[in-house]
Amino acid sequence: MAQTANPTFLRPVSEPEADPGKAITFSAPLALDCGRTLSPFTIAYMTYGTLNAARSNAILICHALTGDQFAASRHPLTGKPGWWDIMVGPGKPIDTNRFFVICTNVIGGCMGSTGPASINPATGKSYGLDFPVVTIRDMVRAQAALIDALGIEKLLSVTGGSMGGMQVLQWAASYPERVANAMPIATAARHSAQNIAFHEVGRQAIMADPDWKGGAYDAAQPGKGLAVARMAAHITYLSEAALQRKFGRELQDRDQISFGFGQDFQVESYLHHQGMTFVDRFDANSYLYITRAMDYFDLAGDYGGVLADAFRNTKARFCLISFTSDWLFPTPENKRIAHALNATAANVSFVEIESDKGHDAFLLDEPEMLGTVRGFMNAAATASGIR
Amino acid sequence: MAQTANPTFLRPVSEPEADPGKAITFSAPLALDCGRTLSPFTIAYMTYGTLNAARSNAILICHALTGDQFAASRHPLTGKPGWWDIMVGPGKPIDTNRFFVICTNVIGGCMGSTGPASINPATGKSYGLDFPVVTIRDMVRAQAALIDALGIEKLLSVTGGSMGGMQVLQWAASYPERVANAMPIATAARHSAQNIAFHEVGRQAIMADPDWKGGAYDAAQPGKGLAVARMAAHITYLSEAALQRKFGRELQDRDQISFGFGQDFQVESYLHHQGMTFVDRFDANSYLYITRAMDYFDLAGDYGGVLADAFRNTKARFCLISFTSDWLFPTPENKRIAHALNATAANVSFVEIESDKGHDAFLLDEPEMLGTVRGFMNAAATASGIR
Repeated sequence: MAQTANPTFLRPVSEPEADPGKAITFSAPLALDCGRTLSPFTIAYMTYGTLNAARSNAILICHALTGDQFAASRHPLTGKPGWWDIMVGPGKPIDTNRFFVICTNVIGGCMGSTGPASINPATGKSYGLDFPVVTIRDMVRAQAALIDALGIEKLLSVTGGSMGGMQVLQWAASYPERVANAMPIATAARHSAQNIAFHEVGRQAIMADPDWKGGAYDAAQPGKGLAVARMAAHITYLSEAALQRKFGRELQDRDQISFGFGQDFQVESYLHHQGMTFVDRFDANSYLYITRAMDYFDLAGDYGGVLADAFRNTKARFCLISFTSDWLFPTPENKRIAHALNATAANVSFVEIESDKGHDAFLLDEPEMLGTVRGFMNAAATASGIR
Repeated sequence: MAQTANPTFLRPVSEPEADPGKAITFSAPLALDCGRTLSPFTIAYMTYGTLNAARSNAILICHALTGDQFAASRHPLTGKPGWWDIMVGPGKPIDTNRFFVICTNVIGGCMGSTGPASINPATGKSYGLDFPVVTIRDMVRAQAALIDALGIEKLLSVTGGSMGGMQVLQWAASYPERVANAMPIATAARHSAQNIAFHEVGRQAIMADPDWKGGAYDAAQPGKGLAVARMAAHITYLSEAALQRKFGRELQDRDQISFGFGQDFQVESYLHHQGMTFVDRFDANSYLYITRAMDYFDLAGDYGGVLADAFRNTKARFCLISFTSDWLFPTPENKRIAHALNATAANVSFVEIESDKGHDAFLLDEPEMLGTVRGFMNAAATASGIR
């Protein structure tokens, strides 16, 4: 029913010494919110640490829009450290000496899980826009299939930032009996109008690129459009204060302005770098699909508009974290979740962390966040009798 | 030396009953900050009201990035009311029964003033990227030539929002003896790193469009890229709260999400409309040049980094306005200007107006703004003995 193998990536592995992780292919179809099914489907994933005999020490980490399963190990395409290397590892806040950490590439992604760049068995070609539009709930359904395949009944904890936090909330709603502790960070229970607007700009930039070819590109992806999408999005991940502190109006490799349209300012050079390196590791169609999944996320919408009802059956202990300068997923959206949880008498704590680093703070060395996560995970372990 | 005629627009006038305004062509070269000169150069402008015999009742209005000279009259291409119709007219806060109002299209623009779409006399073709990169100071220099040509020695007042406010500040710095009252609204004395970043995204979207052709397009301009640039910029003109209030997650002409990449959400439909209509009235190269002029604006930079020194010679009375929800030109940037003016013992007042409408508040029906402008202009008139 399920086959395990090495994952297949969009591009050849350029860091052969990096662990490419594993992939499980499921022959049973995945039923999707859109009414279609996906069959077969593959989930690529990484694990860190060791599953204990009671299978009770598993922590699922959910990645953000452009993240992947390489939370705590070198990326096989870029060679960069894991995106949550600061958080996950031996002796780190999510301590792999103690916990068995699982991180999956989401359905719709481009790092080995089935997505628009995967081969459509019906045609023998890449799905492109024939790939079904997936939702956050679909991503979580696929993760649950993987957790089943790993023989884990209940997760000690589910955590993640941004879109990862959306998945955490969805886990608590969809599989309340399978989540003992939930830690959504810098997230929201719904995508706001402004969030949707920024995503639509990115999608339009991609779709305006003639290399996109209606999603049916092969080797050469719409790099210019994808880079513009990434540049626009990247601004939203940082705070105005952080941009001013890091770059201000400093010039790049020149003494004075050029009176031209090159990269005069350091902030321009930085954005160009972000755009270019992104194109090397990410698939444009995946960007369309995953942004759409986020736009469609409105957890209360699945429960008659009452967010608290999404959490009626959860017994999980919750801890929510937001950052003062995060204007993409601001504190009030996180508080909304806390209020809904309060309304169900859930065990919930909420921490707003003072930071000028914007939304990306959840990926960075924020001591208060690191300490909060460490404390939460340790308490979870103690409550579950994990050494 | 100067010839007056009707202005020539990028596209044929589609509203023949609209007043196309006037244009003056100067044969004397305009010396630019980049070291080049522009010759001949044309300034297209509109006037409202009547210049009094003493030539003492003139108010210059400076437009924002995508504005034009049609502040208070129907746009000859779109047929829409003037962009500051709420502010300027008989009995309005800037009362054309009392004041002679001048509004010019900036140098680099596309509504009749010399810009990249104008014919380069050296080649007989449009300048395209051969057009010199202009600055806010260059725009103001060109306006000063027009004010000279109109026989006006001293402006009763100069006002404008956003990039218009930058011009107001530049007027006070460059021509201190010619400005009696200055009212910069929702602006800054320098473009911030975040502002530059958003502009660079827009420029890259335009330059990534193959129809841009290195700026040498003729009839068909890079519409897709320009629309993406406008969509991204438009988000920054509104507050998150205003987007939520106006659109939230409301769907457009459908009961449920489509599981596709169409315009499911009203906010998407709104942005698309903004992008498409912009392409019909604005030139892509002008967008590059004017955004660059804003990026380069750093008034203190021209005065050894000391903003107060820019205002050493002004005797103008100042009133600054900012809006609480304007995250593009936030209150602290406006306060910075007020502090610099205070340091020169200038006559300055500062009003922060509570509004959830974001940066665009300066264009909208904000009663406190309208009242503040009315009061300031009336006091200016009284002080100058204007009835």
